[in-house]
Amino acid sequence: MAVYTDITEDDLKRFLTEYDAGELTSYKGIAEGVENSNFLLHTTKNPLILTLYEKRVEKSDLPFFLGLMQHLAGNGLSCPLPLPRRDGALLGELSGRPAALISFLEGMWLRKPEAKHCREVGKALAQMHVAGEGFSIKRPNALSLHGWQALWEKSEARADEVEPGLQDEIRGELDVLASNWPKGLPTGVIHADLFPDNVFFLGDELSGLIDFYFACNDMLVYDVSICLNAWCFEKDGAYNITKGTALLEGYRSVRPLSDDEIAALPILSRGSALRFFLTRLYDWLTTPVGAMVTKKDPLEYLRKLRFHRQVASSAEYGLAL
Amino acid sequence: MAVYTDITEDDLKRFLTEYDAGELTSYKGIAEGVENSNFLLHTTKNPLILTLYEKRVEKSDLPFFLGLMQHLAGNGLSCPLPLPRRDGALLGELSGRPAALISFLEGMWLRKPEAKHCREVGKALAQMHVAGEGFSIKRPNALSLHGWQALWEKSEARADEVEPGLQDEIRGELDVLASNWPKGLPTGVIHADLFPDNVFFLGDELSGLIDFYFACNDMLVYDVSICLNAWCFEKDGAYNITKGTALLEGYRSVRPLSDDEIAALPILSRGSALRFFLTRLYDWLTTPVGAMVTKKDPLEYLRKLRFHRQVASSAEYGLAL
Repeated sequence: MAVYTDITEDDLKRFLTEYDAGELTSYKGIAEGVENSNFLLHTTKNPLILTLYEKRVEKSDLPFFLGLMQHLAGNGLSCPLPLPRRDGALLGELSGRPAALISFLEGMWLRKPEAKHCREVGKALAQMHVAGEGFSIKRPNALSLHGWQALWEKSEARADEVEPGLQDEIRGELDVLASNWPKGLPTGVIHADLFPDNVFFLGDELSGLIDFYFACNDMLVYDVSICLNAWCFEKDGAYNITKGTALLEGYRSVRPLSDDEIAALPILSRGSALRFFLTRLYDWLTTPVGAMVTKKDPLEYLRKLRFHRQVASSAEYGLAL
Repeated sequence: MAVYTDITEDDLKRFLTEYDAGELTSYKGIAEGVENSNFLLHTTKNPLILTLYEKRVEKSDLPFFLGLMQHLAGNGLSCPLPLPRRDGALLGELSGRPAALISFLEGMWLRKPEAKHCREVGKALAQMHVAGEGFSIKRPNALSLHGWQALWEKSEARADEVEPGLQDEIRGELDVLASNWPKGLPTGVIHADLFPDNVFFLGDELSGLIDFYFACNDMLVYDVSICLNAWCFEKDGAYNITKGTALLEGYRSVRPLSDDEIAALPILSRGSALRFFLTRLYDWLTTPVGAMVTKKDPLEYLRKLRFHRQVASSAEYGLAL
């Protein structure tokens, strides 16, 4: 839930004069996104999302995020499209924050996705990877090996509060990942956070992808491993191979995976499980009780990490090799 | 900000089958209202507000609130209209909560209202008082004399934490109000919470009143005193007689005030200032730091109360008697 900055209708109307957005008829703060303040605007034209970028987002990254959405939409991906100002800029300022107007995407995220939805997600992820080709701005993945090390150092001392033995386990895991992290696999723009709440459906049809604020350049198949973690485990912690198969088949129907990419899935999945474990652990240890943000259980990702550690071959994810 | 209960799209779709609401295309939790969870729904028909009633709202009061909106809208007041289910009921259930679908009212609340807006508010308040005539369900005002006494007893012991001397001052105030509270003035359905965030405007035109969840039966002019407190003071604590004049003139252009009602304004305004002081004081003393609800400063209403205490005649509010 997130509305960190309130706005006055006067400031908003002044902001809107820079755009060809129609007349404003209402705006509501919406409870989506944890990094930024988001408002749903009704106008005499189409509804819009207004995003005010809060402090956790680097202002220097905004041209990448907004330009990427424009690039992806231009290449046919269904995703929010930033509305340019009359002067062509994608970014304005409102209430002292960088701010952008973005098209409103109809659709709902699925609280209980099924295998058929995982197939659509796999397809859309591959479509995004293909649509991202040729995007000129680069953004390294701050949440890869180096970032994990730095994040871990902030939580390490208190990790055993969460589960005894965690210090040794994660230290060992970081060593293994550092020694075995794949090199030379195809790279491109990845979404890096394609969880169920970032994928909209209308009925069983995928209507679009949202929230590109973790997007960056990295191995494309690493993005697949994130989706395996985000979409293919059940609430009880079990890996659902039917969902995994569907997601991977959906992906490969649009963009084939090489043998090397397939072989890297177990180690990449360990890495992406660790990535979400570490950010959740850090938030768990630092977010005050009763704060506006819901704390997510880091142990969910520790269990996923342990699953991937014992995977012997990528076939266990549901790949017909 | 308020989304206390999340809902799944499956539950929501099942809920919507009871209504003739069109096909659901999106729903977003919105950051409005502090008592309930509210979602803005887009459908293939008109947008709707879905309200899930949380524990602070008495379920037995819901027929009053929903029936009142229907009654007021039927009498021409611009306010949200509950959409009846196919079986005629105004209330359903969703995610274990009583829930209602209500028409979405375009418009925005004014963060910086001016005198011309106060005039519109006065008119709309009087229109509501007239439109409320004939509504058959009754709901006594739980936040009048007796309620204040009970609320005060919960905060009294810690009141001097907020300002030294407060215990004596408020005890004295409650005695004065109990001895001098008006009797025999015209009663009816009052809004009882017509603050700026509950009045929508499109440009300078008032587009409707919302949030009838404090509505009850009480003296009509008591509602006027609430609006004087809510609309006619500046941020620095000064009473703005231009706004007061506009609000009262607007009201009287629709529903005349009798001499007795006018004479009662100072004591009623003391009472309504005390009412908001007491609920804010209670929330101030009991809401944990960092909770999802913004704490409002009780001293703002203590200052207003003190202003009303020194008012010698209703003319000081801007009434040309």
